[in-house]
Amino acid sequence: MSDENEKEQVKALTAKKKDNFSEWYTQILINSEFIDYSAVSGVIVFRPSSYYVWDKIREATDVLFKEAGIKDAYFPLFIPERFLNKEKEHIAGFNPEVAWVTGAGNSTFDERLAVRPTSETIMYDSYSRWIKSWRDLPLRLNQWNNVVRWEFKHPTPFIRSREFLWNEGHTAFATEKEALEEREQVLGIYSKVLKEVLALEGVPGKKTNKEKFAGAIASYSIEMLMPDGWAIQGPDFHNDGQNFSKSFDIKFTDKNGNYQYVHQNTFAISTRMIGIMVAMHSDDKGLVIPPKLAEIQVVIIPIYNDSNKEKILKYAEELKSKMKDLRVYVDSSDAYSPGWKFNEYELKGIPIRLEIGQKEYEGRFATAKRRDTGEKFTFNVDESESKIKGTLDKIHENLYNKTKEFLESHIHKVYDYEKFKDLIGKDSGFVQAPWCGSTECEDKIAEETKAKATNMPFDAQHDLDGKKCIYCGKEAKYFVNFARSY
Amino acid sequence: MSDENEKEQVKALTAKKKDNFSEWYTQILINSEFIDYSAVSGVIVFRPSSYYVWDKIREATDVLFKEAGIKDAYFPLFIPERFLNKEKEHIAGFNPEVAWVTGAGNSTFDERLAVRPTSETIMYDSYSRWIKSWRDLPLRLNQWNNVVRWEFKHPTPFIRSREFLWNEGHTAFATEKEALEEREQVLGIYSKVLKEVLALEGVPGKKTNKEKFAGAIASYSIEMLMPDGWAIQGPDFHNDGQNFSKSFDIKFTDKNGNYQYVHQNTFAISTRMIGIMVAMHSDDKGLVIPPKLAEIQVVIIPIYNDSNKEKILKYAEELKSKMKDLRVYVDSSDAYSPGWKFNEYELKGIPIRLEIGQKEYEGRFATAKRRDTGEKFTFNVDESESKIKGTLDKIHENLYNKTKEFLESHIHKVYDYEKFKDLIGKDSGFVQAPWCGSTECEDKIAEETKAKATNMPFDAQHDLDGKKCIYCGKEAKYFVNFARSY
Repeated sequence: MSDENEKEQVKALTAKKKDNFSEWYTQILINSEFIDYSAVSGVIVFRPSSYYVWDKIREATDVLFKEAGIKDAYFPLFIPERFLNKEKEHIAGFNPEVAWVTGAGNSTFDERLAVRPTSETIMYDSYSRWIKSWRDLPLRLNQWNNVVRWEFKHPTPFIRSREFLWNEGHTAFATEKEALEEREQVLGIYSKVLKEVLALEGVPGKKTNKEKFAGAIASYSIEMLMPDGWAIQGPDFHNDGQNFSKSFDIKFTDKNGNYQYVHQNTFAISTRMIGIMVAMHSDDKGLVIPPKLAEIQVVIIPIYNDSNKEKILKYAEELKSKMKDLRVYVDSSDAYSPGWKFNEYELKGIPIRLEIGQKEYEGRFATAKRRDTGEKFTFNVDESESKIKGTLDKIHENLYNKTKEFLESHIHKVYDYEKFKDLIGKDSGFVQAPWCGSTECEDKIAEETKAKATNMPFDAQHDLDGKKCIYCGKEAKYFVNFARSY
Repeated sequence: MSDENEKEQVKALTAKKKDNFSEWYTQILINSEFIDYSAVSGVIVFRPSSYYVWDKIREATDVLFKEAGIKDAYFPLFIPERFLNKEKEHIAGFNPEVAWVTGAGNSTFDERLAVRPTSETIMYDSYSRWIKSWRDLPLRLNQWNNVVRWEFKHPTPFIRSREFLWNEGHTAFATEKEALEEREQVLGIYSKVLKEVLALEGVPGKKTNKEKFAGAIASYSIEMLMPDGWAIQGPDFHNDGQNFSKSFDIKFTDKNGNYQYVHQNTFAISTRMIGIMVAMHSDDKGLVIPPKLAEIQVVIIPIYNDSNKEKILKYAEELKSKMKDLRVYVDSSDAYSPGWKFNEYELKGIPIRLEIGQKEYEGRFATAKRRDTGEKFTFNVDESESKIKGTLDKIHENLYNKTKEFLESHIHKVYDYEKFKDLIGKDSGFVQAPWCGSTECEDKIAEETKAKATNMPFDAQHDLDGKKCIYCGKEAKYFVNFARSY
């Protein structure tokens, strides 16, 4: 039929990951029906399989937040303009990309309302009313919401999107010590989710002053790599000190009856992670979704003719019933052929495909194919659950190990600026170099090599003795991971 | 200490539910720290305990949606103005309350973008590209998101809020029959959530033509009552027929190769339900939260002095450890006295409070108090789990039964317009009357009595033979529940 052929044609991937990464990235997202472009430029539609991924990331992170004592709340989407203006650096950072609501119905507002690009200012207005006494601290709130940043740079699905979904944690503590202690806890949660849910690994570290968040006194990030060797910032954590508490007058009476300003942090993980996850794991056949994030973990494709249809379909349901804890889908539709279905679920990145036909039915087994390695195997129907659970675990492990190895093989320690420039040009990932700590050198490096200081990895700050800044030759204070960056 | 006293003073409830319902409603929401007003007029802040309630409603509903085959997706927050204009009745219904984004940063947009008041138009633009063949149907998507309706009427927390959270389901079917069958399934899901999660009961039925959704061919609702006897619309379901599919050109090739327009439905449950839940269950001491929605289901308050503190706190933790499946919080803070804590958790509506002091410790028991009835009882520590679980079930049942009885005692069947007018004036809930089906009579009734046709209850449409319209005296076609309405 004509409409079927049309559809197959549209879906076929033509770009290769190695040859044309950015075209391949777009094709796998669109053709697999993972996302679609929308009529609003720079904003995507999350179709069910990608929204499912986000929902699982949210759920896994939220459980860990709650265990840590961080609670969810929900603050207004709109922020009065005067609030954004209260913290100078903050407004300077966000002003160029704020979307403005100027009226409703036929009325024009007296004051413009910003569609939140981030919620510090609207939340801290509430905090200033809620926090009065040491008894009200710590206050550790988070929200899962949508934010809008109308960037004029070229948008890329998930990676740079004018509307995206994220968590934003905003906490207030009585002492600086407590505020600083939260960093390890929160970055630990994000690392755990990246590793155990998305099967990704990143580099945690501190941002340079130049790269810190608008309004923070120190920023921390988990920096990731894309398959093209360019860096991309993952989840982040900002210590805001008393910057906002002073602008928003968030103070409390301590146990001695003295007024004190609170110490604050903010932290976030966003739908950008979905883009990194997809890019790192997928291949020229389409998406590869890690088992914990796959809406369908196992697809059963029955292969039958008129004479054995009933038996085979019944067998498919029996097989499914053996895997109650897993997300199993039997595609028994007559609309498409088994061959079409094989391609379809490969394109969609379903972790395991099971085929069952006459042979499998008679032998009470199933023929399985792993999406990640392409490996085929058979197993007896009675060992379905343990066999398939075990295979899903292996798939997760394999995906994680591959990204970890990729990361590790893409960190190059250099002490020589010529070598540095040579590597930066070649998409070789992070180039780790000693640095004196001056923004001047950082700027010069960026100017000459287009490389950004991604962060200063926590675990790389040793053996600095006697090391010289890669640019100016003065005494080095930090090791920095430089990279071309998204 | 001065700040403590201040706080207690602020929190004390002064209004009574019976005497001044609307003041009482605001006081219990604000003073219990359930919500707060925000700097954006008509928009509230969901503090952790109210957001928790919404998260649980969302979760329970979403599980049932997924079982029914409805999947979650996420569409853009902004809608191009030309889309809203495509369906005439739709834009006429929403235009007066749409918030408009006119630019970003320093740029002005060529076309205004609406902040979604509902997402039919942006979703159906995608649907028109996704749906090509009978193979692509049904398409049953839902999203959990925020919407903005800038109503100029007096805002009331949860009940009428300029930004609120909801689900919006938007489905497309090949045939009218399938589309109509979805109604029972979806209203069934909403009724189940109301009953089993919120402990509420409502009246499902069809809306009159006048009251149907802007763009629908038929609307259905579950109508609820507030404690003051005024009606309020709960979850709804709209059959849009082919109205939108024709405006948005959503057509498919059927099995015979002919083009057909899809048949569509939309449905929603919103954070308004939290307002109804709170209003119905709570009392003059504060909130009463049904056990399934309470962030803390059981609070343990240890009562100790310096000499037995260690033992009592250890005993509190032991008691908590016996109730692993429940959400139990031990308030061992020294910041407040036990008496203060009793009031605090009563105000916050925690379903069960457990006190343990020296006597309880020695006897290995706990003293419990139910929030809903005030009933006190003791139980042995080793029977904690079964005893407390059983009590939580009883609390849910009691709350549900009370609202059901209230509802049933507030439906008055009348056949006489004088009697009708008399009842409507007295906040007596739903006045059920026969009606001829004409908008003219409906309008006249509204004009003369301020009563709205809430809906035509499914289970009331019998024994219509010989009944006359309450207003014009012509033959009646329906029984309608009229009421003063929020």
